[in-house]
Formats: sequence, structure tokens, C-alpha cells
Amino acid sequence: MTSLAKTERLIDQAAADLSPGVAARHAYRAGMAASTAGVANGCVQGNLAILPEKLAGAFHRFCQLNPKPCPIIGMSDVGNPRIPSLGLDLDIRTDVPRYRVWRDGEVVDEPTDIMSYWRDDLVAFVLGCSFSFEEALLDEGLPIRHIEHKVRVPMFRTNIACSPSGPFAGPMVVSMRPFKPADAIRAVQITSRFPSVHGAPVHLGLPGSIGIADITKPDYGDPVPVAADEIPVFWACGVTPQAVISAAKLPFAITHAPGLMLVTDLKNKQLAVL
Amino acid sequence: MTSLAKTERLIDQAAADLSPGVAARHAYRAGMAASTAGVANGCVQGNLAILPEKLAGAFHRFCQLNPKPCPIIGMSDVGNPRIPSLGLDLDIRTDVPRYRVWRDGEVVDEPTDIMSYWRDDLVAFVLGCSFSFEEALLDEGLPIRHIEHKVRVPMFRTNIACSPSGPFAGPMVVSMRPFKPADAIRAVQITSRFPSVHGAPVHLGLPGSIGIADITKPDYGDPVPVAADEIPVFWACGVTPQAVISAAKLPFAITHAPGLMLVTDLKNKQLAVL
Repeated sequence: MTSLAKTERLIDQAAADLSPGVAARHAYRAGMAASTAGVANGCVQGNLAILPEKLAGAFHRFCQLNPKPCPIIGMSDVGNPRIPSLGLDLDIRTDVPRYRVWRDGEVVDEPTDIMSYWRDDLVAFVLGCSFSFEEALLDEGLPIRHIEHKVRVPMFRTNIACSPSGPFAGPMVVSMRPFKPADAIRAVQITSRFPSVHGAPVHLGLPGSIGIADITKPDYGDPVPVAADEIPVFWACGVTPQAVISAAKLPFAITHAPGLMLVTDLKNKQLAVL
Repeated sequence: MTSLAKTERLIDQAAADLSPGVAARHAYRAGMAASTAGVANGCVQGNLAILPEKLAGAFHRFCQLNPKPCPIIGMSDVGNPRIPSLGLDLDIRTDVPRYRVWRDGEVVDEPTDIMSYWRDDLVAFVLGCSFSFEEALLDEGLPIRHIEHKVRVPMFRTNIACSPSGPFAGPMVVSMRPFKPADAIRAVQITSRFPSVHGAPVHLGLPGSIGIADITKPDYGDPVPVAADEIPVFWACGVTPQAVISAAKLPFAITHAPGLMLVTDLKNKQLAVL
């Protein structure tokens, strides 16, 4: 090993010691591709959307108009793969475990890096994810059904229309977690503190009112049981922008692969507004 | 009119100008007996419980253990009818529009003042009331069904046991307001800011879970319709301490008459914790 390589390794190790997010990103950068659920506990994970500059303005406005499903926690400059506010060493071209490359609304590749797809006109958006508020719910002792059952959270397309912007339009997708009513009230309070990761629920108790015909049949993720003494509680979901990007049939876009998120150095607790 | 009487009247007028609470209390002090609903908008109204000193400790502890139905916003010293923190001129013996005098669990009198019942060993407790958080809900544009229908709020005995203290024990009484789910979530957020006036709801969506068999048949107050696209939301209610005092069959106690509350000079907005 050269002296330079050794120094680089020592610097890497020091950074990894500083934040579990750094350690995780370095593993993904080296090619590891696995679900980020439970990885780098305490660190914020984000949904990724990368778009050409000429579409980025309309998408940025879409996020502005629909902050509950699309809360922006970080954004790159045009053509710049760095987002230092989310991690000093972060490189958006390599640090996500697996990407989806979209052409005309279809996934054409699922690489572990996008070095060969990167362009000088791309803009990366990182959007908040429910992992952050789930940590806050678990910290207060609230049981989260899909975590207990070791499955993905159930997600549903609703009849709640997002405010459109340019080619970006479509229904809000929501995630569902069942709670006993008193816990549902506590969950509203806890998640209200985290507006940058979807915030308070958008609905609870009456799935039919938001166009969900069968609570046992999610459109994404896995079903979980809702007990007779529980009510379903619905949060705006980061799958919304993915579904909207897919429906827009853009010539070119890149997202993360579902469940394989961007791990940042932000701390979930830092996101609490009070 | 003597010069002294004229001066007193001028002082009264100046105080009434200062706070609509003062004006209201002066009217009740003069003998007016009417519902305080909608009176002195913006001013906190309170539930009243007056007990002999030897029972006051146990009741104070009951409130401490059950802060959601029994949030204390003011308390007199033993034998002292003044509670200056709620109004500099406030006299708890005269300023409530109508009182209930209880002996052995029965109402034996409903006078407009309690000058003849006052004793040197009495302690007055003033407990927060839902009028305060209803103002906050209305201010944010949330519709309140019983106010729209000009009836009393429906209240229900639940199967939620209060934590007992001495002779004070019994089920929590809750008030019910129906809301569309998104408004119910907003109502949780708004009322969470007001812990001293019952705070966040204790339940929502599943009346049967808290022992309410028929939502159309309240135990106190009046029924209101719950639409198919609404869920019932339940808050701890200030009728709880009244019901508990009645059930305790104390030798002697005084409360306000339902709906005829103590009007204070505190402002509802002052009670917000954030």
C-alpha cells in the first residue's frame, strides 16, 4: 500500500468513526447493494430524484407545492454531484446502494453507481423519508406493525390529487401504519415535529374517504393486519414523486431503487422543529 | 349617588374596559344567572370545585393524577375567596353565575352566590374548560358541530378509569366533536398546544373501545350527528370532576352549575404552550 493510499484509508476510517452515515456510504460506494432499512441508525435517509436541468425547475416547484409527500432535505447544484449539507464527502453518483435509470417512463437499468450516466446538466433532489419519523415513534415506544412483521410498509394510491407542475402530476401515495386510537393521537403529535420527513399524517380512520377500497391490498409494499381496536393512520409517502416521475414518462431520470436509500450524515433528531 | 359610590363605579368601569372578564363577573356578581357560552370572548372560563380543607388534599392529588380531565388553572388559599391570578378583583363566592351546593352527593341548592355557605376551611379549585380550545379550533376555521347546531357538547362516560385518590374515583367523562379525518389531525395539533384546558384528545375513531355503546346517546349534553365521512374525536371533559365529586357523596361541596362557568381575566391564547 502506498503512503498516499494509507493516508486516504486513515482519513476514511476517521470519517466513518465520526458518522455511521459515512461508513454506510463508503460501503455502498464500494459496490454493496442492500436495503438501507435499519442501517446507520439515527442518520437521516433520503429518497433520490435526479433530473435534467430543463425539468428540474418544474420538479422543484412540484415539491414546493406538495411538501408533505415531497419534502426537500437537500439539492445539488446543476452538474455537481456533491451535496455537502448532507455529507461532506457525499457523491450522489456512487453513494446510493442501487439506482434506477428511467427512460420514457420505463426502468432501463438498475446500476450500483451512475458514473456512466452522469451529465453536466443533472440536478439531484433528496427528499425526506419516513424512516426518520419511524425512529421517533419507536423511541417513544409506539409499535410499528410492518417493522414487527419484518415486511415493507404498506402504501396506497389515494384520490388526493397532488398540485401539478409542468409534466409532474398524479395522486398522492400514502403509507399506512395501524395504531390504537390513543397511540394514533400520540403519533400525530410526534410526527408533527418532523415536517421535513412527511410530518403529521394526512388522514386516519376512514380509508374509503381517500379512495382506498381495500386496506388489505396495498398498491406498493406489503399488507399488514389492522386489529379491531386499531385505526389505520396514513402519512404522505416518498413513493409519490417516484410514481409521478414514472407517470410523466420523462426522456431521462434517475431515482434510487425502492428501499435502497441515500444515507446522509444528518441526524433524525436534528429534523425536529421543536 | 355619593361621591364614594361614584368613584367605585368609575373604577368598575375602568376595570371592565380593561377585560371583558371583569365586566362579565360584575354582572354575575350583581345576580345575573345565564350560560357563559360565548361570554367574554378570548377570556378563559373555568370549572369550579370548592371543598373543605380536609378533602382538598385528596382532591388536589386526584387532579394531579388525572391532569387531562382535571387541569388546575387556579386555586385559592384555605378560607380565602380570592384567586388573584385569575382576576385581581375576583371573588369566588359571588362571581360565578350559578352554583350547586352538594350534601352527601345530592344537589341541595343552586344559588347565584354562596356568601351564606362560605366557610373558613373551604378551598376553591378552578379547572380548565374546553371553551378555551374550542376558540383555538374556531380560529383556525375548524367547524364545531354542537356550536353550529346551538346545543351543548355531547359528553359520555367511558370505561377509562381515573386514577383514584381518597374518596375521589370514577370513570373519565369525555366530550365528543365529529371531524373529517384531516381536520381531526389538525385538531390534535391545535389542542396539544393547550394542556391546561384538556389538551390533546384522549381517543378518536372507535367509540366502542372506550365503552361508548351508542354515539347518538350522550350521558350528558345533547346528541350531534356524525357524518359518514367524519370520525368522532374525544377529549377529556371537566364534567369528570363533577361526576367524581357527586359519586364520592361528600358531606359538603360546591361546584358551578353546568354551563355557568367562572369567567377569568386569563386569555385563552396565553394558555398555549407553544
